[in-house]
Amino acid sequence: MGAGEDARAIDIRNAFALGSALANEDWVVLTGGRNRGVMDAVSKGAKASGGLTVGILPTKNRRTISAAVDVAILTDMGSARNYINVLTSDVIVACGEGGAGTASEIALALKSDKFVVLFNSSNESRALFKKIGGRLIFETDSVAKTIDVIRQLLAKKAKSSTRRTKR
Amino acid sequence: MGAGEDARAIDIRNAFALGSALANEDWVVLTGGRNRGVMDAVSKGAKASGGLTVGILPTKNRRTISAAVDVAILTDMGSARNYINVLTSDVIVACGEGGAGTASEIALALKSDKFVVLFNSSNESRALFKKIGGRLIFETDSVAKTIDVIRQLLAKKAKSSTRRTKR
Amino acid sequence: MGAGEDARAIDIRNAFALGSALANEDWVVLTGGRNRGVMDAVSKGAKASGGLTVGILPTKNRRTISAAVDVAILTDMGSARNYINVLTSDVIVACGEGGAGTASEIALALKSDKFVVLFNSSNESRALFKKIGGRLIFETDSVAKTIDVIRQLLAKKAKSSTRRTKR
Amino acid sequence: MGAGEDARAIDIRNAFALGSALANEDWVVLTGGRNRGVMDAVSKGAKASGGLTVGILPTKNRRTISAAVDVAILTDMGSARNYINVLTSDVIVACGEGGAGTASEIALALKSDKFVVLFNSSNESRALFKKIGGRLIFETDSVAKTIDVIRQLLAKKAKSSTRRTKR
Repeated sequence: MGAGEDARAIDIRNAFALGSALANEDWVVLTGGRNRGVMDAVSKGAKASGGLTVGILPTKNRRTISAAVDVAILTDMGSARNYINVLTSDVIVACGEGGAGTASEIALALKSDKFVVLFNSSNESRALFKKIGGRLIFETDSVAKTIDVIRQLLAKKAKSSTRRTKR
Repeated sequence: MGAGEDARAIDIRNAFALGSALANEDWVVLTGGRNRGVMDAVSKGAKASGGLTVGILPTKNRRTISAAVDVAILTDMGSARNYINVLTSDVIVACGEGGAGTASEIALALKSDKFVVLFNSSNESRALFKKIGGRLIFETDSVAKTIDVIRQLLAKKAKSSTRRTKR
Repeated sequence: MGAGEDARAIDIRNAFALGSALANEDWVVLTGGRNRGVMDAVSKGAKASGGLTVGILPTKNRRTISAAVDVAILTDMGSARNYINVLTSDVIVACGEGGAGTASEIALALKSDKFVVLFNSSNESRALFKKIGGRLIFETDSVAKTIDVIRQLLAKKAKSSTRRTKR
Repeated sequence: MGAGEDARAIDIRNAFALGSALANEDWVVLTGGRNRGVMDAVSKGAKASGGLTVGILPTKNRRTISAAVDVAILTDMGSARNYINVLTSDVIVACGEGGAGTASEIALALKSDKFVVLFNSSNESRALFKKIGGRLIFETDSVAKTIDVIRQLLAKKAKSSTRRTKR
């Protein structure tokens, strides 16, 4: 998750590198699906490494779909689609400072008890979401550390699923 | 908007007083509609002053509806209903510190270009949403000031509507 | 529920008379909220008898709200709002032949185990929904009979609620 | 689209064969995603032929996901997810008689101006949706004919997209 039209150049670069690294781990990359900003860049990075990309879009307008999205879900539900984005994800990564849309996704993820990685977030965002989210929030400042945190979180989830199955 | 199960006693008291004051202005009070925390208290306050209350609920379970809600909208859409709450409101008031749900509503409101009043919010919440929302964010620390800000915002909206109509 | 832009003159007239009769029973009238066709006419009829009207709209565009709607809920969720309409209603009345939107609401209502009254429906609509809905479907051909059926259904619901409460 | 818990044996068999044939055409198969009835069978058929399957689920409960779904979208929006299903699809196929859920998807598809193929539908369903949907409705009684109709519809869509692009 991250800024669309207002993404900074550094966030776009990081998003592309992150997408590429996620695909190298064979993880499916899910974004907001539009052809703008962080969501577009992370999908492009994932495709550059041969990954599978899913995009969940706010409108039903096919022209807004990123060319790097393989599976485009058209919701026509505006920002309500942010809730679907976080429920569908195993781990949410907020890449860069983001704006109101990104903040809503972080908050909805915490409300749904999901892990959130703040990658190069703002001080203000880290302060609020750490306060609200506690153990669900992780902070990183590089692609390598972000991948590492996700790997640990997925391992933890897999372990708890196994335990649940055994009972 | 505000905390549900985790609301503090001070937020509940303020919410009741705010609901009462809103109804005295003849404004319709819209909340998340459940029989918990700030949403329940503000609706009760509004009814105590003879106001009209609307609640937009996350489930389709009628037993969760606050007894103080006149018009209950059942969405069965979980936290996606937060988006409907903010779109339907003229002004959003976040009462108290709130948690992830409240933060998501503030963020969705800013994304939708809506005015948000932070009434007794946390320092962290004020810092982030002021940074993201700029001129859309207002901060208050009493019921009287909150009512005053809303009155000014509604007057501003009315004026801009009139202007639009005249063109 | 009923046709919007494509409503027939007879459906509009029936919708107005029905809205008026519903308000005379002190029932809240809920519609799709737009200023078109059956939803507009039934709201106007209800206001003519001093009733309370609720409208749940597909967009966030305030200019599409019927002037006869007291409480307008803006969803920005397109036809997904049809699901909210039926969940929120105690009894659904499809007024006139309707089109694809009306058919979707009848089907969603049956899926949600709601009573549906087909008032002056088409033969094809009655045949399919009777087959699918069985005991949930009622057919009427006048405002008076429609009101009578609703009264019986609400009485039945009240009784079953009471029974549930007593246990 | 088709029945879940109440699917008939014949519909399940047809759904499996259809899923297999769709995958042989290299088309992505999108369903309601649950591990029940037609949606489960068509996904299994598609996987048996090496296809890609997408499922859009009504809840956020991962245990309800069909084992044959590759990309599972969790909406937590109940039957409102039916709207996303039809918007995201190029062509909708209703397989078998279906119930209220299937009828709602056909109606929502027609409302959204989508092509719908009724494969082994009931007489009542064909009568109503032909009346409402006109040129958007196609009727088939075998997997081979269903594939043939879809191929023609996709060719028509591709042509009209090309034309649009040229302008």
